[in-house]
Amino acid sequence: METYIVQDVRKAFVVENIWPGIQANCLYEDRYLMGTALARPQIAKGLIECAKQESAQYISHGATGKGNDQVRLELSSYALHPDIEIIAPWKIPEFYNRFLGRNDLFEYAKKNDIPLSITPKKPWSMDGNLMHISYESGILENPMTEAPDDLYQMTVDPKKAPDIADKLEIQFKRGVPVRVKNLADGTEKTDPLELYLYLNEVGGRHGVGRIDIVENRFIGMKSRGVYECPAGQILLIAHLDIENITMDKAVRRIKQGLSLRFAEQVYEGFWYSPECEFTRHCIDKSQENVDGTVTVEIYKGNVFIKSRCSASSLYNEELVSMVMKGNYEPEDALGFIKVNAVRLKEYCRLRSSQAEKGDAS
Amino acid sequence: METYIVQDVRKAFVVENIWPGIQANCLYEDRYLMGTALARPQIAKGLIECAKQESAQYISHGATGKGNDQVRLELSSYALHPDIEIIAPWKIPEFYNRFLGRNDLFEYAKKNDIPLSITPKKPWSMDGNLMHISYESGILENPMTEAPDDLYQMTVDPKKAPDIADKLEIQFKRGVPVRVKNLADGTEKTDPLELYLYLNEVGGRHGVGRIDIVENRFIGMKSRGVYECPAGQILLIAHLDIENITMDKAVRRIKQGLSLRFAEQVYEGFWYSPECEFTRHCIDKSQENVDGTVTVEIYKGNVFIKSRCSASSLYNEELVSMVMKGNYEPEDALGFIKVNAVRLKEYCRLRSSQAEKGDAS
Amino acid sequence: METYIVQDVRKAFVVENIWPGIQANCLYEDRYLMGTALARPQIAKGLIECAKQESAQYISHGATGKGNDQVRLELSSYALHPDIEIIAPWKIPEFYNRFLGRNDLFEYAKKNDIPLSITPKKPWSMDGNLMHISYESGILENPMTEAPDDLYQMTVDPKKAPDIADKLEIQFKRGVPVRVKNLADGTEKTDPLELYLYLNEVGGRHGVGRIDIVENRFIGMKSRGVYECPAGQILLIAHLDIENITMDKAVRRIKQGLSLRFAEQVYEGFWYSPECEFTRHCIDKSQENVDGTVTVEIYKGNVFIKSRCSASSLYNEELVSMVMKGNYEPEDALGFIKVNAVRLKEYCRLRSSQAEKGDAS
Amino acid sequence: METYIVQDVRKAFVVENIWPGIQANCLYEDRYLMGTALARPQIAKGLIECAKQESAQYISHGATGKGNDQVRLELSSYALHPDIEIIAPWKIPEFYNRFLGRNDLFEYAKKNDIPLSITPKKPWSMDGNLMHISYESGILENPMTEAPDDLYQMTVDPKKAPDIADKLEIQFKRGVPVRVKNLADGTEKTDPLELYLYLNEVGGRHGVGRIDIVENRFIGMKSRGVYECPAGQILLIAHLDIENITMDKAVRRIKQGLSLRFAEQVYEGFWYSPECEFTRHCIDKSQENVDGTVTVEIYKGNVFIKSRCSASSLYNEELVSMVMKGNYEPEDALGFIKVNAVRLKEYCRLRSSQAEKGDAS
Repeated sequence: METYIVQDVRKAFVVENIWPGIQANCLYEDRYLMGTALARPQIAKGLIECAKQESAQYISHGATGKGNDQVRLELSSYALHPDIEIIAPWKIPEFYNRFLGRNDLFEYAKKNDIPLSITPKKPWSMDGNLMHISYESGILENPMTEAPDDLYQMTVDPKKAPDIADKLEIQFKRGVPVRVKNLADGTEKTDPLELYLYLNEVGGRHGVGRIDIVENRFIGMKSRGVYECPAGQILLIAHLDIENITMDKAVRRIKQGLSLRFAEQVYEGFWYSPECEFTRHCIDKSQENVDGTVTVEIYKGNVFIKSRCSASSLYNEELVSMVMKGNYEPEDALGFIKVNAVRLKEYCRLRSSQAEKGDAS
Repeated sequence: METYIVQDVRKAFVVENIWPGIQANCLYEDRYLMGTALARPQIAKGLIECAKQESAQYISHGATGKGNDQVRLELSSYALHPDIEIIAPWKIPEFYNRFLGRNDLFEYAKKNDIPLSITPKKPWSMDGNLMHISYESGILENPMTEAPDDLYQMTVDPKKAPDIADKLEIQFKRGVPVRVKNLADGTEKTDPLELYLYLNEVGGRHGVGRIDIVENRFIGMKSRGVYECPAGQILLIAHLDIENITMDKAVRRIKQGLSLRFAEQVYEGFWYSPECEFTRHCIDKSQENVDGTVTVEIYKGNVFIKSRCSASSLYNEELVSMVMKGNYEPEDALGFIKVNAVRLKEYCRLRSSQAEKGDAS
Repeated sequence: METYIVQDVRKAFVVENIWPGIQANCLYEDRYLMGTALARPQIAKGLIECAKQESAQYISHGATGKGNDQVRLELSSYALHPDIEIIAPWKIPEFYNRFLGRNDLFEYAKKNDIPLSITPKKPWSMDGNLMHISYESGILENPMTEAPDDLYQMTVDPKKAPDIADKLEIQFKRGVPVRVKNLADGTEKTDPLELYLYLNEVGGRHGVGRIDIVENRFIGMKSRGVYECPAGQILLIAHLDIENITMDKAVRRIKQGLSLRFAEQVYEGFWYSPECEFTRHCIDKSQENVDGTVTVEIYKGNVFIKSRCSASSLYNEELVSMVMKGNYEPEDALGFIKVNAVRLKEYCRLRSSQAEKGDAS
Repeated sequence: METYIVQDVRKAFVVENIWPGIQANCLYEDRYLMGTALARPQIAKGLIECAKQESAQYISHGATGKGNDQVRLELSSYALHPDIEIIAPWKIPEFYNRFLGRNDLFEYAKKNDIPLSITPKKPWSMDGNLMHISYESGILENPMTEAPDDLYQMTVDPKKAPDIADKLEIQFKRGVPVRVKNLADGTEKTDPLELYLYLNEVGGRHGVGRIDIVENRFIGMKSRGVYECPAGQILLIAHLDIENITMDKAVRRIKQGLSLRFAEQVYEGFWYSPECEFTRHCIDKSQENVDGTVTVEIYKGNVFIKSRCSASSLYNEELVSMVMKGNYEPEDALGFIKVNAVRLKEYCRLRSSQAEKGDAS
C-alpha cells in the first residue's frame, strides 16, 4: 500500500523559520541569507510527523552525499525522532557508483521510458522554495564561469527592471514584519505569508537579492552557489535599520555574536538542537523593543533605506543635536577621553623605555 | 610666529588605514565602512609629528564634544604623545555656551567680517576625505526626514547613473588590491592611491556606496548619518569574495570575530592601542593566502560579483563536483551525520523522559 | 534634620547578585569572583531607594577617584535614577589635594579629636561584605611584597586548617544552590542566606578561597589585590561540576561566551544596564536543567569534587561505556573523522603545491 | 620483515605542545589542562614520520571508537599525510563485536598464553605521559562513584603531602617558563624538559593538579575522567599571574577568546589545521612582553601566588597609589562615568515612558 501526503507548510515556514532568521539578521559567511538552510528543518518536521502518523520506520531523501542538505535533513530527523532510520540512495555505493551524476540519471530514465518533466538543457542544479532559489553544479562548478542571464527565476535582471522605484513602508513588531504598505498604490499586507510573497513580488520585479558566492559547506569543502532571495534581502536591510534605532549598543554587540552562532547552527543543520533553541530564545528576547516602521525604496537591485520611526526608539534627537544642549555636558567628554587614554599612555611609556634599553622586540 | 604646515598623507591613508580595513571586511554595526574613523588616526599622526617637530606643547581641534571624532583624535594623540595637551574649544564651557551651534558661528563670522567659504544654505554638517563623505546634523537629525537628493557629492543618484555597466577585474595580494583593470576600456591602475581614486571615480559614476543609518556613537548616544563610500563598497564586496575562496572555513570564523573587534576599535578611536595593533597583526596574518582576481560589474548602485580565480584557492572543483568522485566517499557522510546526531538524540531522550515525568519546564 | 537609615539587604544580595554570579561561573580575568563588584549594585539600589523615599537630590559616597567602586556606585545610581546628583569628595580637588591618602585623614582626625575605630597599624585598605574581603593599597601596592600572614579575616591560613576534611553535599536547582548538607555532622541549610553563611564558615575554617592577583581596573590601570571568598570558591567549583553533567556541550560554549561578557559587565559597574539584564536573562535560561547534587571535600584550601548525580543528566553511562554497546556504532566514527579531515587534506595539498612552486610565504 | 622504532619526543612534546598550552592558559571546559590532547599531535607526527621513512601505506592505533583519541590521532595523521590509510581495530565490527571490552581481551590473552604486564585488578583505564595521567572507564563510568585513593600515580594524596611548603621562583620569557628555582634548596632548572619534570616532582610531592570532571567529548557524548597534572597546574597559575601584569587589558580580552578557541581545537584533534596554526600564531604574538618572575608556594594541593615582578610590567605603582598623585586627575573620572551613563539614562527614560503608557512587556 502506498500513501501520498502533501502538506502546505508555507506559512509555518515563514513564521517558524524565516522570521527568526530576520530577527537575527542571519547571514552565513556575511552574505548568504540561507533560503535553503532555513527550509530544511520545516521539511524534516513534516517528514517526521508523517512517519510517526504512518508508523514508518524509515524515511528517505534524495540529497547527495557531498552537500549540506543531507546533514540538515538527517540531523533534524534524528533530533525529532531518534529511532528513525534514513535511506539516502546517494550515499549507497551501489547507487552512486552506478549513477555518477545527473546525466546518468537522464540516461537511465530515457532507457527505461520514465517520463521526466525536466530536461538536461540547463546544465546546473536548482533548489527552490518560497524564500529563494539556489543554483549550483554543472557549469557553475567552475568559479570563473559567469552565471548565464537566463538562470534566474525569481528576479528579473536589474538591468531590465523598471525605471520607477517602489517605495514601501515596513512595520516591525518584536523584530518581525507585521505590515507592508506600498506607498505608490496603497497595497497593504499583514498576513505573514501574504506579506512575504508580496515582498518577493516587489523585490523580484526590481531584481533584488541576487548573489554569486563561494561558500564553505559543513562537510569541509568549498562550493560555488548562485542565489536569489528578494523578500529576504529587503527584510534584512529594513530589519537592520529598525533594530539599530531601538536596541541598546551593548545589547547589539552581544546579539551580533549570537547571530553569528545562529547562522552557523542553521547552515549546518542544527535547528533542532539545544544550542539553536537556546540561541533563538536569546535572540528573540533581544527583539522585545524592536518595533517601528522603516521606509525603503526598491530600485534596480537596490534596497535603499529612506527613513524610520519608532515609539521604542533609543534615539534622542535633543541629546544628539549639535544645537540643543539636552542633558549632556561636552565638558564630561574630557574626562571620558582622559580615562580611556590612561592605558594607552602607559603602553606608550613602556615601549619608549623598552626602546631606550634596546630590548624592544 | 605662526607656521602653516600642509602634508599630503593620502597615500599613507590608503596603505596604512584603508587597506587594513579592507583586509578585515571592516563594517561598524554591519553597515558603516568607517571612512571617517579610518582617517582620524592618520590625521592625528600628522598632527603629532608636527607638534613634535615644532616642540609644541598643545594641539587643538574643532570636533564637538558629542561626537566620535573628539575621541578618535584625542586618544590617538595621547597614545602617540602622552604629554601633549589638547585644546578643544567645543568642550570649553565659555565657548560652547556662547555658540550653541553652527548658526551662532555664522552669525559671529558675519558680525565680525570674517570671510567664510561655506554658507548656511545646506542645513547639515559634512565631513569628507578621499574615502568617503559623511552627512549628519541639521535636518538629518530627524530620522524620519529623508536625505535630500542634492546632498551627495561623491556619487551620482543611481537613478541617473549610466545604463551601461562597468566591468572591472580586481586583483588582490595578501588581501589588498594590487591591480584594477576596466575590461571596457582597458584602464589599469596599480598604484594604491591611483587605484583607490579610480575605484571612487567608477563607483561614484554608478552611484555605488550610499547608506543611511542610525548608529551608536562611542559616547553612548545614537546618531543618524548618511554616508557615501564608492571605492570602499566595491572593495568590500570583492574582498569578501576572494577571501572566501582562499581562506579556510575555520580560520574565517576566528578572523570574523577579530574583524568585529577591529571595527569597534577603529570606530572608538583606539587605532594606536595595544589591542588594535594586535588585532591588525592577526588579521594581516590571516590574509597570507588571500590572493587572486575577482571580476565585478558596477551598475546603478550595485556591485555584482561575476567570477573569481585564485592560485591559492582552497576550492577543489573535482572534490565538490556531483559528477566526479574525487577523493571523497559519500558513504563517509553517514558516519559524520550519525556522530553529530549523538548529542541531539540524547537531548531528545532527556526531554521525552522529563515530559513523561511531567517535570518539563 | 538628619535621618540615619540602616537596611539589611544581605539576603537580597545573596539571591539577586551572588546567585546570578554562581550561575555564570563568573570570574573576572579568570580568577576574581567579584565579591566587591557583585555587592555594589545592591548598595546602590538601597541608596537610591532611600534617596527617593527621602526626596533627596544628592547622594554621596567615599570611593576614591582611581578605583572601580566609584564607577559601579555611580553608574548604578544614574541607571536607577537618571536625575540624581552625586557628591564624591575624593574627586573634588580641594578635598583630594588636601588629603593625599589615608595618613592625612588619620592626622586630621587626630588633630580634630575625631574618634576613630580603626588605626593606621594595618598598612593596607580593606573592603568586606558577606561574600568576601578585599585588601589593597599600602604595602600591597608593591606587587613584589608578599601579603602578611595576619591580613586575612574570613579564612584561616590553610597551613593551620584542620587535618580532617569536611565533606558536603550541595544540591542545585536551576543552577542555584538550594541545600547544603555536611555529611560529617548532618548540618543542613536551605535558606539562601544561611546556606551561604554556612559555606563561608566551612570554607573559612579550611582556608578556602584566597587569591593574590594583579587585575585590570575599568579605568585602565592595573592594581594588585588580595581577596578571600570562601563560600564563593566552593560554589564555583561545585556549580561547574553540576553544570557540565546537565548542560549540552554546544549550549555550554555559547553560555561560556556570555559569562565572560557578564563578568566584564559586573566588574565595570554595568549591572543595571540593558546588556547586563539581557545577559542575565540568557544565562538564567541556560540553567533550566542545571539540577542535581555534587559532593565536595573541603581540605586545607582545596575544594575537591568527589561525585555528582542529577536527574537531568545528559551523561549516558551505557552510551559512553567501553563495555556496553548502547546505540552507537564505532564504525560511524570512521566517516565522522574522514569528513572532518576533508578540509585538512585540502589545506595540506595547497601548501605542498605552493612549496613545490617555491612561493610559500 | 618487522622494524621496531622507538623515538624520544619528550623534549619536543614540552616545547612544541605544552608551551603553547601554557601561553594560552589552555583549559578545556574551564578545568582540563589537556595532558592527553596536547600529546596526541606529537605522537601522530612521530608516527607519520616513521610511516614516510618506511614508505608505509598504513598506520594503526588502538584507540577506541567512542573516544577523542581516535579523532586526534587520525585527524593529525590525515593532515600531515593525506594519503595515509588508518587501521583502527576498535572500529572494525568483526573486532569490536568479538571483544566487547577490556575483560574480553584479558580472557583472550589468557586463553592464548599471551603474557600481559597488566592485570584486570584496577577496574579502570589509564593513559599517561610526562604531562599527566588520565583515568576513565570501569568503575569511574558511574559519576557517583568516588575515585579510589590508590588510583593516582603522579601525585600523593594532598592529605599525605609534607607539612612544609615548597617555594619556587618561576621565570617566564615570551609566556614560556625559562627558569625554575626552589628557594628552599637552591635547585635550579632551565632546560625545558628538566624544568617540566622538576615541577612534576615538586607538584607531585605536594598533591597538586588532581581533578575529577565530567566533560564533553568531541563525538557528542559526556564522559567522566579523573586527571592529575602537577607541573601543568603550577604553570597555569604562575602564567596567569605574570601574564596579567604584563599584558594590556584589551589585548587580554581578545587573547582570552582566542584561547577558548585554541582549547577546543586541541581537544578536538585539530592541532595540525589552518585554524590552530593561525590561533597559535596569534597567541604567541600576544606573549611578546610576557616576561618576568613569579614566586609561588606549593602546599598540600595548592599553588599560592606570593609575589611577582617584571621589567615589562604595565603596572604603575605611582599611578595606582592612593597616596601619590602620578599623572591622573581623579576629577577626570567624573566625566568618564557620566559619559558611560548616557546610554543607561536613556534606557531608564524609555522604560519609564513605556511603563507610563502601560505598554511595557
